[in-house]
Amino acid sequence: MSVKDFVQKRREALIELRRDFHKYPETAWLEYRSAAKIAATLISLGYDVALGEEVLDLDSRMGLPSKDVMSAAMARAIDEGANPELVEKLGFGKTAIVATMKFSDQGPVVAFRVDMDSNDVIESKESDHAPVKGGYRSCHDKAMHACGHDAHMAMGLGLAEYVAEHKDQFKGTLKLIFQPAEEGVRGAKAMVNAGVVDDVDYMFGLHIGFNENYANCFACSNHGFLATTKLDAVFHGYAAHAGSSPEKAKNAMLAGCTAVLNLQAIARHGKGASRMNVGIFESGTGRNVTPDTAVLKLETRGATTEINDYVIGRAETIIKAAAEMHDCSYEITKQGETPSCRMSDELAPEIQSIIKPLGIFRDVPLDYSGGGSEDCAYFLNRVISRGGMGTYMLVGSAIKAPHHNPLFDIDEEDMLNGVIALGTIAAHYLK
Amino acid sequence: MSVKDFVQKRREALIELRRDFHKYPETAWLEYRSAAKIAATLISLGYDVALGEEVLDLDSRMGLPSKDVMSAAMARAIDEGANPELVEKLGFGKTAIVATMKFSDQGPVVAFRVDMDSNDVIESKESDHAPVKGGYRSCHDKAMHACGHDAHMAMGLGLAEYVAEHKDQFKGTLKLIFQPAEEGVRGAKAMVNAGVVDDVDYMFGLHIGFNENYANCFACSNHGFLATTKLDAVFHGYAAHAGSSPEKAKNAMLAGCTAVLNLQAIARHGKGASRMNVGIFESGTGRNVTPDTAVLKLETRGATTEINDYVIGRAETIIKAAAEMHDCSYEITKQGETPSCRMSDELAPEIQSIIKPLGIFRDVPLDYSGGGSEDCAYFLNRVISRGGMGTYMLVGSAIKAPHHNPLFDIDEEDMLNGVIALGTIAAHYLK
Amino acid sequence: MSVKDFVQKRREALIELRRDFHKYPETAWLEYRSAAKIAATLISLGYDVALGEEVLDLDSRMGLPSKDVMSAAMARAIDEGANPELVEKLGFGKTAIVATMKFSDQGPVVAFRVDMDSNDVIESKESDHAPVKGGYRSCHDKAMHACGHDAHMAMGLGLAEYVAEHKDQFKGTLKLIFQPAEEGVRGAKAMVNAGVVDDVDYMFGLHIGFNENYANCFACSNHGFLATTKLDAVFHGYAAHAGSSPEKAKNAMLAGCTAVLNLQAIARHGKGASRMNVGIFESGTGRNVTPDTAVLKLETRGATTEINDYVIGRAETIIKAAAEMHDCSYEITKQGETPSCRMSDELAPEIQSIIKPLGIFRDVPLDYSGGGSEDCAYFLNRVISRGGMGTYMLVGSAIKAPHHNPLFDIDEEDMLNGVIALGTIAAHYLK
Amino acid sequence: MSVKDFVQKRREALIELRRDFHKYPETAWLEYRSAAKIAATLISLGYDVALGEEVLDLDSRMGLPSKDVMSAAMARAIDEGANPELVEKLGFGKTAIVATMKFSDQGPVVAFRVDMDSNDVIESKESDHAPVKGGYRSCHDKAMHACGHDAHMAMGLGLAEYVAEHKDQFKGTLKLIFQPAEEGVRGAKAMVNAGVVDDVDYMFGLHIGFNENYANCFACSNHGFLATTKLDAVFHGYAAHAGSSPEKAKNAMLAGCTAVLNLQAIARHGKGASRMNVGIFESGTGRNVTPDTAVLKLETRGATTEINDYVIGRAETIIKAAAEMHDCSYEITKQGETPSCRMSDELAPEIQSIIKPLGIFRDVPLDYSGGGSEDCAYFLNRVISRGGMGTYMLVGSAIKAPHHNPLFDIDEEDMLNGVIALGTIAAHYLK
Repeated sequence: MSVKDFVQKRREALIELRRDFHKYPETAWLEYRSAAKIAATLISLGYDVALGEEVLDLDSRMGLPSKDVMSAAMARAIDEGANPELVEKLGFGKTAIVATMKFSDQGPVVAFRVDMDSNDVIESKESDHAPVKGGYRSCHDKAMHACGHDAHMAMGLGLAEYVAEHKDQFKGTLKLIFQPAEEGVRGAKAMVNAGVVDDVDYMFGLHIGFNENYANCFACSNHGFLATTKLDAVFHGYAAHAGSSPEKAKNAMLAGCTAVLNLQAIARHGKGASRMNVGIFESGTGRNVTPDTAVLKLETRGATTEINDYVIGRAETIIKAAAEMHDCSYEITKQGETPSCRMSDELAPEIQSIIKPLGIFRDVPLDYSGGGSEDCAYFLNRVISRGGMGTYMLVGSAIKAPHHNPLFDIDEEDMLNGVIALGTIAAHYLK
Repeated sequence: MSVKDFVQKRREALIELRRDFHKYPETAWLEYRSAAKIAATLISLGYDVALGEEVLDLDSRMGLPSKDVMSAAMARAIDEGANPELVEKLGFGKTAIVATMKFSDQGPVVAFRVDMDSNDVIESKESDHAPVKGGYRSCHDKAMHACGHDAHMAMGLGLAEYVAEHKDQFKGTLKLIFQPAEEGVRGAKAMVNAGVVDDVDYMFGLHIGFNENYANCFACSNHGFLATTKLDAVFHGYAAHAGSSPEKAKNAMLAGCTAVLNLQAIARHGKGASRMNVGIFESGTGRNVTPDTAVLKLETRGATTEINDYVIGRAETIIKAAAEMHDCSYEITKQGETPSCRMSDELAPEIQSIIKPLGIFRDVPLDYSGGGSEDCAYFLNRVISRGGMGTYMLVGSAIKAPHHNPLFDIDEEDMLNGVIALGTIAAHYLK
Repeated sequence: MSVKDFVQKRREALIELRRDFHKYPETAWLEYRSAAKIAATLISLGYDVALGEEVLDLDSRMGLPSKDVMSAAMARAIDEGANPELVEKLGFGKTAIVATMKFSDQGPVVAFRVDMDSNDVIESKESDHAPVKGGYRSCHDKAMHACGHDAHMAMGLGLAEYVAEHKDQFKGTLKLIFQPAEEGVRGAKAMVNAGVVDDVDYMFGLHIGFNENYANCFACSNHGFLATTKLDAVFHGYAAHAGSSPEKAKNAMLAGCTAVLNLQAIARHGKGASRMNVGIFESGTGRNVTPDTAVLKLETRGATTEINDYVIGRAETIIKAAAEMHDCSYEITKQGETPSCRMSDELAPEIQSIIKPLGIFRDVPLDYSGGGSEDCAYFLNRVISRGGMGTYMLVGSAIKAPHHNPLFDIDEEDMLNGVIALGTIAAHYLK
Repeated sequence: MSVKDFVQKRREALIELRRDFHKYPETAWLEYRSAAKIAATLISLGYDVALGEEVLDLDSRMGLPSKDVMSAAMARAIDEGANPELVEKLGFGKTAIVATMKFSDQGPVVAFRVDMDSNDVIESKESDHAPVKGGYRSCHDKAMHACGHDAHMAMGLGLAEYVAEHKDQFKGTLKLIFQPAEEGVRGAKAMVNAGVVDDVDYMFGLHIGFNENYANCFACSNHGFLATTKLDAVFHGYAAHAGSSPEKAKNAMLAGCTAVLNLQAIARHGKGASRMNVGIFESGTGRNVTPDTAVLKLETRGATTEINDYVIGRAETIIKAAAEMHDCSYEITKQGETPSCRMSDELAPEIQSIIKPLGIFRDVPLDYSGGGSEDCAYFLNRVISRGGMGTYMLVGSAIKAPHHNPLFDIDEEDMLNGVIALGTIAAHYLK
């Protein structure tokens, strides 16, 4: 059966699958229900499934939640139907899966990487938001699939199922990588450092969504990856009575606010794109107490690692000085990072030549240059540095609101087209 | 028995009582355990005890917690030994008590007012902090008696017990008022509007602590009360992907930080003290999402209501402009307020003349001029406006750290002296 | 002739004198024309006039203008009719005068101190501003008598003339002190350190204006003096092309703006009034160059020297950190300062008892508590510390706009009443 | 004679010429001495020279200095040897020159455009700064050729002289355009709107300098032009006495500082480079007066006009809100602007093919992508829109400090090579 026909046949099931993932979003390192469901499916499809510690260098993980938070998420996953044994294996920061199917001794090793985590976003309750209408709005507090990873998982499983059903038509080895904690770029480094792609010849990453100009397009490469670093900064001051002795305060909130304004005002870099976002700021304990703590969660980005380092350097100087300005102490801790990445230039035209004839996309441009960051960079850099090739592809979709917005939503038709594209690419390289 | 001898006899019991209140701190409108214990004690001492709706104008309450929070606190209080029937009566924002004992038809009505709520402060765990050493550190999350209300309650019950034991020596009527939600100045207005002091001739408020210069002093009056208003400001922006489309953001955190800096920079007033404190600031949902919300909890103060109004006016202008600067919408809501207050000038010398001879205080100054605010102002203003007299007294104590600080602690000897002073004052006016 | 009659007779001349001073305002240390005119008048009245170096400790002068600026002002004064010989003696930062008249060997030494400098304010050109209507608007660029020192000089000369005309009615010694550079509190210290009041028994300072509540009042004392310090802060950064290499900038303007916001946000002091004003901020050299310099001219104030020191300490910390935040270097230099001051409590009632009967003031309160600073504090502190007495008096006047505002104007009737008051006080103590 | 030989022969004269321009820098619209000297030279070389009103649409000029400033600069130019008649023609904002030489009726019209104005930068006095060592440091206050326009003028005159000496070897028509006020992008629009390039077939602009990576390179095209707009913002507040009535202030400096921080914090744009620079900030009149004015001079830039418009839009919102936050009024006025620009893609390879063989440049890349803005864009856009071709070339030079820095300096060898390149291009297209 052609991959087009396969997708047509499994259309409803794939949509249902994505909506199920959507309804039960799990943020970084807490993807217990999602991963357990994926692992169970892959096992039943006949894949050789490696899990948890087998596919993670534990010391390379970044930005893990607290033990209590992980325990609670594990219990919730089991409540929601996850296989307890699988949850145990995935437990406490080990939600990584590598599924392998070997078709022949000869032939290349081809890997696809998919991410599983959701965002710290409260999903909209507006009545015309499709997940509300369709009854699959997030049922988890402060978590939402607002970046399309729900669709990524469905696409990964769609590819897995198609290949498994047609395995006699393939040569070489397929590796399906389901990665935790892409948000915050915290998970890839640990999988790569465990060596899971050291034997890979062709490495593919992908993402759905992006912007209106790419609706129903398939971009074969992405040269717009930004290096990024995730930092937490904490200020410690002194709490005084705001009415009777305000002069005794060491006002951590003023340190934090001064830092935020100056961080956002870090000068642009003449050599390329840079970014700064303070995403979370929490300060103070009571209205009539001068605030003695402030926590900032921020990220830097740069078109190159050099530019990203420039932003980090400025950020550290600003945070230190903001603390000193208000007689506060402070700490800065790294919560995640990923380098920039250069794709294999040869791959994009090859992929264009096999996807275009499918006739399912409005356009198949060679390149997409967004402003995102992706720790898929670790996978691609590793494979390319070892002599393989790799690229990162975009399944453009007419999204309803920007990525990470409470109203984010993709067009499910594009997801289905994405499965066709992945199956076509797998068939092309695994022969 | 003299009140001095009484306090000597009950010394250990009063200290124990204060430490019990200290260990179970309850923030504003959640004083279920404290109030139930007080009510039970007063009933057992023979007072006529009015509770909850009987002594509150429900519409005048300000800054109530959510229903869920109140439910949880009620359950916790019962878990910790509170009488369930009393908790029910006090339930859902009704933690107010007025205990009355009538000695004779003739004679004045004399009222003492005590507050019961704790602060939103996380108590220190330092090993030489007395409550840590003594084993009575707060066992409640994010709550601490860091303003001495634990001692106030113990002093109020000490006075109640002394008077009850010696009631044949008194004339007129004693009213003991235990008020919820002094922090945030949210509770007094509702008790006053219920009419509980409309028949009072002499109204007394008091506070323990303050500063080193007043250690072991008793100040008979306080002309330094500041008018105050408690405001919440919320900014609503728009969340965008911080890497790919930062220009789509409506950054509520920048609105908030700009507001905080400019609020703290509101010009001093030439005619007297003013205050501004943004005590709490929370913004953002995720590190790589531009922050679409910001919440500020703040308070203004002024030596006069005119000055306080000036600060409020400037604050409203700043918050509105900060929102507009970042294309955000906003709301401001009032969470509490109290006017300034002028004591009865005649009372202070009278009190000085009866307290000084006790010989238990290092000094008995006429006046204390701090920079605090107190909704006891409502009680005093009401009584004075109806022809009665009133004052607010300070039991000075060598505190270990400023009020509202995690290391705040009083000297319990001063608390015991405070009971002697209250008993002496009661004996003087109720004869 | 009574002082009342004298003022009535000289009414037009005194008004003319004040308007002449008003038209030719001279800022601090540049009072060449004003001082030369005063000195010439005093000499012609028979006073023993000491000038320049004779009455100044040169090392104690603060905040002198540059040599070029002084030269230009001296030339201008001569152009405008000043006696060149006097200008030479007063030249280059020596615009101080002490005029003495000895009536008898016995009797007290009584001193009055008047200030001469104008403000760095551009006077309004509005057609209903009295100096515009009357044709005596400032003819000097960026200078205006917006604090009434023009009236002070006229009052001092009125007093000088009255006493000289009636010298046989006085005993003891009169000293008339005309001080430069009161704005910025830069001039008094140098006169006091030259010993000019070391023999004084009664020291009087005065000011006209203030606020509507004191219109046509005479306050006998001022307990509201604030200690103050005048500081300049300069930031040095690095200028880069704002388009091609903004990342190379060390942005001194951002350092300056961050400093200004945080300086104005220095926490109030619980023990009394404090002030912070950044009055001047200049930064940058060109629109498309990142700004490499920033200059801040600021002042701190405090109800006590302790509070003023608190504000200075915070200011220094903020300026240092703001520089470090933007990789800039910086310097802070002191440009002026004066302590707080406590008047002699005995004098106010005495003065009240002799001024009230004059019947020329609406009210004669004992005290005025403004929020100003005055280096007359040096004179008063010196005399009081040596056993003399002193006070600072207010001639209240219905001003048209706040002090230092381009529309500031006094009521000349109050100035005339002020001369009567000064003559009455001189007659009382010099007998 | 080959252009190489010509430059060799005139080497000292060209260097001398550049140093003379360097010593007498003139900022935008004040290039009287420079333009008069250029015009006189071109006339003597036999060019048909059009001047002033002949080559300017007066209404399209932007950001003119005041009449007084222009008068003073004209007088200074004459003092420094400029021809008074020429200065009169160029006077009051008309410092534009178009020199034409027609070789034949047939043949293309080829134009080169050179800019003449200097920067508002104070040149370094460091002893190892070449102009200090060489005795040609700027002798004008607050003006410096810190962007290489001195070299541009020398290169333009070198080209003019070479062509005039060899005019029998050329066909078609040469136009040499000397433009005022490139800094601030204020001058080109008025020349273009006067129609001076409406007959041009090939339009060339050029710049020297840029960065170390391009030392001794010749880039044939520049796709990195940014659109830019120059804005002034003025805030008007209210001046009050900072000590006695700070609450009456409407603090324009706080409005300005809040604006500066938030302007620099305008979010990056996901679709390309943006810039914001507040280059000048001046506020306040006196140290003890609350500042009642603030002036900001700023510029926005964008990789596209759309992005530039985004930055302008945000800037206007921020400035308006900053004013409202401090009860100030405000105005925004436009002082200059230029669009982005797209070169003719065909020209770069052609130029590369004729420059490379000269062997005088280390490298001859097709493109340079800086972050600058240039109103040469008006010339190029006009010529290209009418069917001609155009490009903007870079003569890379190892500069000593960034453009617009007090230590900026070029390598004069690169300037000489630039003349060879221009002569070669002229010879190629004019044949």
